[in-house]
Amino acid sequence: MNFCSDNVTTAAPEILAALAKANAGASAAYGEDPLTRRVEAKLKEIFETDLMAFPVATGTAANSLALSCMTPSWGAIYCHESAHVAVDECGGPEFYTGGAKLVDLPGEHGKLTAAQLADVLARSDIGSVHHVQPAAITLTQATEAGTSYRAGEIAAIAEVGRGYGLHLHMDGARFANALTFLGVSPAEITWRAGVDMLSFGATKNGAFAAEAVVIFDKKLTQEFAFRRKRAGHLFSKMRFLSAQLDAYLEGGLWLKNARHANAMAKRLAEGMKGVPGAKFAHPVEANEIFVDLPETAIRGLIADGFKFYRWLGEDKTLLRLVTAHDTKEADVVAFIASAKRHAAEANERVA
Amino acid sequence: MNFCSDNVTTAAPEILAALAKANAGASAAYGEDPLTRRVEAKLKEIFETDLMAFPVATGTAANSLALSCMTPSWGAIYCHESAHVAVDECGGPEFYTGGAKLVDLPGEHGKLTAAQLADVLARSDIGSVHHVQPAAITLTQATEAGTSYRAGEIAAIAEVGRGYGLHLHMDGARFANALTFLGVSPAEITWRAGVDMLSFGATKNGAFAAEAVVIFDKKLTQEFAFRRKRAGHLFSKMRFLSAQLDAYLEGGLWLKNARHANAMAKRLAEGMKGVPGAKFAHPVEANEIFVDLPETAIRGLIADGFKFYRWLGEDKTLLRLVTAHDTKEADVVAFIASAKRHAAEANERVA
Amino acid sequence: MNFCSDNVTTAAPEILAALAKANAGASAAYGEDPLTRRVEAKLKEIFETDLMAFPVATGTAANSLALSCMTPSWGAIYCHESAHVAVDECGGPEFYTGGAKLVDLPGEHGKLTAAQLADVLARSDIGSVHHVQPAAITLTQATEAGTSYRAGEIAAIAEVGRGYGLHLHMDGARFANALTFLGVSPAEITWRAGVDMLSFGATKNGAFAAEAVVIFDKKLTQEFAFRRKRAGHLFSKMRFLSAQLDAYLEGGLWLKNARHANAMAKRLAEGMKGVPGAKFAHPVEANEIFVDLPETAIRGLIADGFKFYRWLGEDKTLLRLVTAHDTKEADVVAFIASAKRHAAEANERVA
Amino acid sequence: MNFCSDNVTTAAPEILAALAKANAGASAAYGEDPLTRRVEAKLKEIFETDLMAFPVATGTAANSLALSCMTPSWGAIYCHESAHVAVDECGGPEFYTGGAKLVDLPGEHGKLTAAQLADVLARSDIGSVHHVQPAAITLTQATEAGTSYRAGEIAAIAEVGRGYGLHLHMDGARFANALTFLGVSPAEITWRAGVDMLSFGATKNGAFAAEAVVIFDKKLTQEFAFRRKRAGHLFSKMRFLSAQLDAYLEGGLWLKNARHANAMAKRLAEGMKGVPGAKFAHPVEANEIFVDLPETAIRGLIADGFKFYRWLGEDKTLLRLVTAHDTKEADVVAFIASAKRHAAEANERVA
Repeated sequence: MNFCSDNVTTAAPEILAALAKANAGASAAYGEDPLTRRVEAKLKEIFETDLMAFPVATGTAANSLALSCMTPSWGAIYCHESAHVAVDECGGPEFYTGGAKLVDLPGEHGKLTAAQLADVLARSDIGSVHHVQPAAITLTQATEAGTSYRAGEIAAIAEVGRGYGLHLHMDGARFANALTFLGVSPAEITWRAGVDMLSFGATKNGAFAAEAVVIFDKKLTQEFAFRRKRAGHLFSKMRFLSAQLDAYLEGGLWLKNARHANAMAKRLAEGMKGVPGAKFAHPVEANEIFVDLPETAIRGLIADGFKFYRWLGEDKTLLRLVTAHDTKEADVVAFIASAKRHAAEANERVA
Repeated sequence: MNFCSDNVTTAAPEILAALAKANAGASAAYGEDPLTRRVEAKLKEIFETDLMAFPVATGTAANSLALSCMTPSWGAIYCHESAHVAVDECGGPEFYTGGAKLVDLPGEHGKLTAAQLADVLARSDIGSVHHVQPAAITLTQATEAGTSYRAGEIAAIAEVGRGYGLHLHMDGARFANALTFLGVSPAEITWRAGVDMLSFGATKNGAFAAEAVVIFDKKLTQEFAFRRKRAGHLFSKMRFLSAQLDAYLEGGLWLKNARHANAMAKRLAEGMKGVPGAKFAHPVEANEIFVDLPETAIRGLIADGFKFYRWLGEDKTLLRLVTAHDTKEADVVAFIASAKRHAAEANERVA
Repeated sequence: MNFCSDNVTTAAPEILAALAKANAGASAAYGEDPLTRRVEAKLKEIFETDLMAFPVATGTAANSLALSCMTPSWGAIYCHESAHVAVDECGGPEFYTGGAKLVDLPGEHGKLTAAQLADVLARSDIGSVHHVQPAAITLTQATEAGTSYRAGEIAAIAEVGRGYGLHLHMDGARFANALTFLGVSPAEITWRAGVDMLSFGATKNGAFAAEAVVIFDKKLTQEFAFRRKRAGHLFSKMRFLSAQLDAYLEGGLWLKNARHANAMAKRLAEGMKGVPGAKFAHPVEANEIFVDLPETAIRGLIADGFKFYRWLGEDKTLLRLVTAHDTKEADVVAFIASAKRHAAEANERVA
Repeated sequence: MNFCSDNVTTAAPEILAALAKANAGASAAYGEDPLTRRVEAKLKEIFETDLMAFPVATGTAANSLALSCMTPSWGAIYCHESAHVAVDECGGPEFYTGGAKLVDLPGEHGKLTAAQLADVLARSDIGSVHHVQPAAITLTQATEAGTSYRAGEIAAIAEVGRGYGLHLHMDGARFANALTFLGVSPAEITWRAGVDMLSFGATKNGAFAAEAVVIFDKKLTQEFAFRRKRAGHLFSKMRFLSAQLDAYLEGGLWLKNARHANAMAKRLAEGMKGVPGAKFAHPVEANEIFVDLPETAIRGLIADGFKFYRWLGEDKTLLRLVTAHDTKEADVVAFIASAKRHAAEANERVA
């Protein structure tokens, strides 16, 4: 009954089985093994293009390393003010880039827009040594508000960026959730829309600890390889990272897991509509729900053993509820019932 | 029949089983889980002292993060010229420290000595802003030459360093191999000898990917925590790193694995003494053998399917042979026989 | 007739003379000379306290080096969104700190307030490794809006910061202008109010290129010395930096120069009040004026040969006018007359 | 009577006069002034090629900034083990490059050789992510041993480097001294021999504090401009740096000053040959002499008021004697006489 985050979850049984299977005999170290090559081959097929893929173990590593290949140390990286890279990585991108500047921008429902970026870039004093220089844009898909960028929105942002020679990165910690919500192909919302590098997340959607940095713009590849090693993110026994990713991609497991997480979020959101006083802060377009509830309902849920975060402060009544590949429908049903019951009690007391 | 390195090996079955067992239900993220706490408790018991332990996934991460807490960016870190941090981490310590200087020193059989350090430090111009300032010493245990520092050697080095206010780090990627070779207690060759931080390796000795940075000097702890997060080395699903370490320590598995690896190395070394022309470069005090063989013997071994590295260049006849927790005695026996047979052929041809 | 900035100005004749005088015979290098010691002695007297002073040649060097001693790389530095360190130094503080985060805050007339900082700090998640940690506050005195912090305002900010263990830095590129406007003692608006380090500017107020980093919190001194050298900001022929500062402080030259600059600004501001359509964006409390003029007046001034910046964009009608130690009253008078004439023409046309 | 270094010296009167002359009226800041352009034009003429020139104030800044444009953070920079960048800049290059590795190489009389570099580079494991990658070579001209690289030596080194795609930097703190000793054209020992960037020193040869980074490979220019600003090495009142360089180049002042310094060194060296027990460590090919003297002679010289450094330690009898543009012949004569007298006394005592 834990809705805190999709990182409190288990690994999918298929991924555990793959790890066990990979654990036989000697295998070349540092990514020179067949499993690592197979992951890259599968990603090429899935994304319908040539690419290079580098497994790493955490999202912060994926994002920071990717961004560090896209900007000089005097560069500016544009991101939404709620972006994980800006808020939750303790300055990881700044560390990896040697002090580049994250420019945090506001935006409804966790999204940047092309118009906003066009405006900001027009005032960025290109070529002046006194000011950091526009270098990259990073989008989160699905966003930190549980919404998903449409292909057209991404393409429009990429086009604005291209006019200034910017690279485009996508933090896809919940990429599978956005993809299955949108019902599009992986290519459509990445390289075809102008994305140069993707942090392709698996950890939150069923792996133990595995992400792939997918590089569509291969000019950025060599630099990435050296930076990954130098930062201690090149695993010696790489096959065990790759085994997770291989199983994640095999037979569409990644999509199946994301569909389940999204379905649970949808089920939860619909149930919550029936809770008196519930107000949704954002549309539900992936596996996260942001809902404001009466304080009594919140206390009741906690008393009933449910776990979740109050968003933006312990004194706030906006909740973030996250579902995942292993969320049980029974828990969702129980959550809704508990919320309804306690909200009703509140109303009775008021009445 | 792969003697290339202990990083081409499998994970121990006990560790796989522990991972499977840990994969049940939700668990708090980022190290706030019971398994992570249990690992620290076990390490306290094993090292017979209070300490803090931070799991990470690679040796480069462990070493670089540890060193970055021990030196300002204008500091000098003293290490053996063959040290992994100096040679094989693509400048990881320089990256993490913001450009501190690794001072590479020579030394017989992969070891630094207290006398040598005393001499170097005496000439280090303490307090002069023109020169980097002595900040830390890092020792590799077991060394890159397959030898092991005695407790007295470490304590003597630590004492010299202490005179200059230096921190002492130990790269223990093969700590268990040294420990079981020496037959001492973990405390004796670490904090009791003056070690402030230990990169406690598990990956090479039976884990999938897990190391613990063990901090004896707790003043360095808070800095470590922030640096780990910022570098992307804090795992969200930490329990799966900790599960590996927990099983590694449980019931002395780590010692059992190391004893096996060492026994295989000893067996191999003794067998090789019977090979005509074999010359050992270093005493065998852990799980690595450095032996010079006739070129014909080397080619014969390769033809027979054995894998290993020629050390210091493809045109060299010095081999590094590494054994591990999963080395099969039959492979060792076969290796010796093959080497003997081909060396004898060589002699016949010469005769 | 150049009102662009106080960095387009000459050096004061007294400072040129001092340079000539210092240019005799050999002198110890790197600050081991008598002039450098004398500058420090004079600053101790002026600030009525013990302190250490480090001459450097640019304001960006002074600010970046100072801030780098006040924060770990995972720290947050709070500053006004218009601060030179945030906007005009191409990420200098981020470079010097290894990627710390400048948190830009809004604030009327270029100032931060204690209440605002208290609010921001209360939400800063102290101790959480996921977020950068509050480390320092930097104030600009006089501000980028040409206003001056009162001693009480600084002390209130310092007190809030102290509650969180923050250091307080002051960017005093125009310190003398603020000081003479306020009519207080140097001590009152620095260490007595809680300032730990001051970038004490001389370049804009009559030097060729000289600033002194004045360190009141002497625990930060040693680090500063190494960082300055390592960054190439320790001059070998230091006496020529120190000679400038020595003459700057001698007989109150720095105060005389600042008083003149301020008087010219005041004269200019009063004259501009008579210009039809003139609107002041900020009170004039140092040597900068921010005034909105009719476009016709601006074009007329340009045609008459006056130089200045349109603030915030070439299509804007807000002007920044800066006076300095060598501004001629006749130029001020001519500027006012030109502005009035052209503004009147505009009105006639409209009428 | 100070032979400690050429940085204890005065500025040439011509340079002081130029500073005074430049100190008139307003001038555009940050290098947009006519003097800065004129310096670049003069350098183009002197070096007989197109180039870009960036004034900075210290040699450490010039060297570190130049090297930071020539290497990624995972690069190796090859230098002589006595090089200023390796020994005397407190890790400046490591700071500016984000932790690149200086590879210190031995070499007779302060010089690297093409053969040695070819050998080192052949063993550098190009393309392997485990090791830092060859990126640049830096030569000191004149060397730290007071010798000068011949054009052919430089060209041979450059050719070896080019085979690996390396950049070539020259630390020319004493460039004028080498140039006038060699009697060649500036082009011959720089870009025609393969040098990409030159730290063109003026401080040691008659300026107050001025160096020009001369960039022959213009692809490196933009990066340099941003790095200089970000590091606080872009002067606002740039005309006063440029005025020094302009006067330095005007009418061959730089060559005249260097010729004088070299002549004084030659005069001193010849005189010292007559001192009993004097042994020269290196040929005298610029303005530095390394001579071993009897301890009694050294003590006598000190007692007579001469200043100089014992090289490599206070207990050593090898002296470094440096002459400069303002060394007086009378001081040289007196030094020789004093040395002879005290050395003779020593001999008498021995006899």
